[in-house]
Amino acid sequence: MNAAMIGVDWGTSNMRGWAFDDAGEIVAQAARPSGINAVTDGDFAAVLREMVGGWTDGGTPIVMGGMIGSRQGWREAPYLPCPVRPEALAAAAMPIDTGTGPGWIVPGVSRVDAEGVADVMRGEEVQLLGAGIADGLVLLPGTHGKWVRIEGGAIITFRTFMTGELFALLKDRSLLGRLMAPGRTDWDAFDRGVDRALHDPALTALLFTVRTEGLSGRTAPEALADYLSGLLIGAEIAGGGGTPGERISVIATGKLAERYARALPHAGWPAPELIAGEAASIAGLRRVGQAILKTAGRG
Amino acid sequence: MNAAMIGVDWGTSNMRGWAFDDAGEIVAQAARPSGINAVTDGDFAAVLREMVGGWTDGGTPIVMGGMIGSRQGWREAPYLPCPVRPEALAAAAMPIDTGTGPGWIVPGVSRVDAEGVADVMRGEEVQLLGAGIADGLVLLPGTHGKWVRIEGGAIITFRTFMTGELFALLKDRSLLGRLMAPGRTDWDAFDRGVDRALHDPALTALLFTVRTEGLSGRTAPEALADYLSGLLIGAEIAGGGGTPGERISVIATGKLAERYARALPHAGWPAPELIAGEAASIAGLRRVGQAILKTAGRG
Repeated sequence: MNAAMIGVDWGTSNMRGWAFDDAGEIVAQAARPSGINAVTDGDFAAVLREMVGGWTDGGTPIVMGGMIGSRQGWREAPYLPCPVRPEALAAAAMPIDTGTGPGWIVPGVSRVDAEGVADVMRGEEVQLLGAGIADGLVLLPGTHGKWVRIEGGAIITFRTFMTGELFALLKDRSLLGRLMAPGRTDWDAFDRGVDRALHDPALTALLFTVRTEGLSGRTAPEALADYLSGLLIGAEIAGGGGTPGERISVIATGKLAERYARALPHAGWPAPELIAGEAASIAGLRRVGQAILKTAGRG
Repeated sequence: MNAAMIGVDWGTSNMRGWAFDDAGEIVAQAARPSGINAVTDGDFAAVLREMVGGWTDGGTPIVMGGMIGSRQGWREAPYLPCPVRPEALAAAAMPIDTGTGPGWIVPGVSRVDAEGVADVMRGEEVQLLGAGIADGLVLLPGTHGKWVRIEGGAIITFRTFMTGELFALLKDRSLLGRLMAPGRTDWDAFDRGVDRALHDPALTALLFTVRTEGLSGRTAPEALADYLSGLLIGAEIAGGGGTPGERISVIATGKLAERYARALPHAGWPAPELIAGEAASIAGLRRVGQAILKTAGRG
């Protein structure tokens, strides 16, 4: 096979790749647990070749996004500061000879607030590009979830919330987790957490109520993790900014998407548009690749 | 020795004991790493006897406070609901034959909010009694720090903040901790954290700035833990309630007391009165003991 273009979403824990034909259709795909943390010998070229080598005779452009462009990755692709227009991501993509073909690494995006404190994303900008949203708020929930403001297709500003990492820490490592038991999702407990966090900004006090709800038996052990999830997502929504009534989209699938779709209306937002993360990654990588091909006179 | 009274502060990790004479002076003291979590065989009587047995001929009243009265302790001393007047703690102390002499376990204190969610303290109520504060806010910083409102000497209401546990989790177990290095206290970084948390309620977003401050080199690795500490203490003060100008006291010593004494004025509070926790525990146990002796006609 000699694909027209190859896209790789190369993150901390995993990598996924797609081969596209001239029409932009996917003709092959693969995934490996070879995120940058797993490439301990630094031989990214070998890892890439093993996954995508069969898709190219050597001349296919390979577009890579995600943590592969971080300081801990293959080659650092410096952050583009906000605002970032879609075409800027392709224009600033960092060329690299991959050994399997000509490569480009998509840069991350940074934002500096009035006090000079930075925020950063890497990988989400590809999904945002792929989602193709013109205006509004876009949420990318996760370990370090993002709230992104898009205007005229450009990333205007954004903010990262440690919601996912805090949930995992508190569930698995804190005193709160000791009272929890696995079980089916308890949406009532989740809703209670969302509402409390939306109405009370003292999150570090609310977190202690996970313990007292468990000790008092008011919330069952099987429901405590959902109550905690509700508190953290509610706090994120309370702090995320924006005005209910604006267009709002969530790039997520499954249970995570369901949690945000359920929680946002508690704060007066409409049900958000849901966008699958993998589809957004594919569309974003393809869009960057097509822009690069065009610039190179090959598109 | 045959002391007039023995007081024991028996917590999760440690126990400390004091023998008092008729005048209430300390005539002996001891400490053991025998908190309730360490007494795996449940033989609390033996642990107590080993520490205080030499202070009594068998008839000395032994007053115990802290987690020893929890469900996981020797005997559960049910929580007294707020408001709790000082004399109520002695009146509700749970009698127990310790095997070393007549014992009493001081109850904890609970509070239920408008939505029915409980908060609890156990051990702090003894310190509050010992501090003898008539009116105002009293802070007991720590793993699960308390903000307590006192009126006419009674515990009116209180709230628990997970500040200390969150700090330890985020420093030792999260991605944030990976960028940190040990060093001398960096008060500038601490102040910056306090100010940011006082002016921005989105704590879970602010926490991510510990990472970006480190990645960008704006804050040195040695100062990141202090910046994190400032964020969490600032968030606690922002959510603690009360009105700057009220009397405010902090039951703590050393670096922890210094952090709160430094942070509170950032929110417009005066420098708080500082009270040593051990002195407050001693005074509180003695006060309960004297009330019990009086009731028993021995005081």
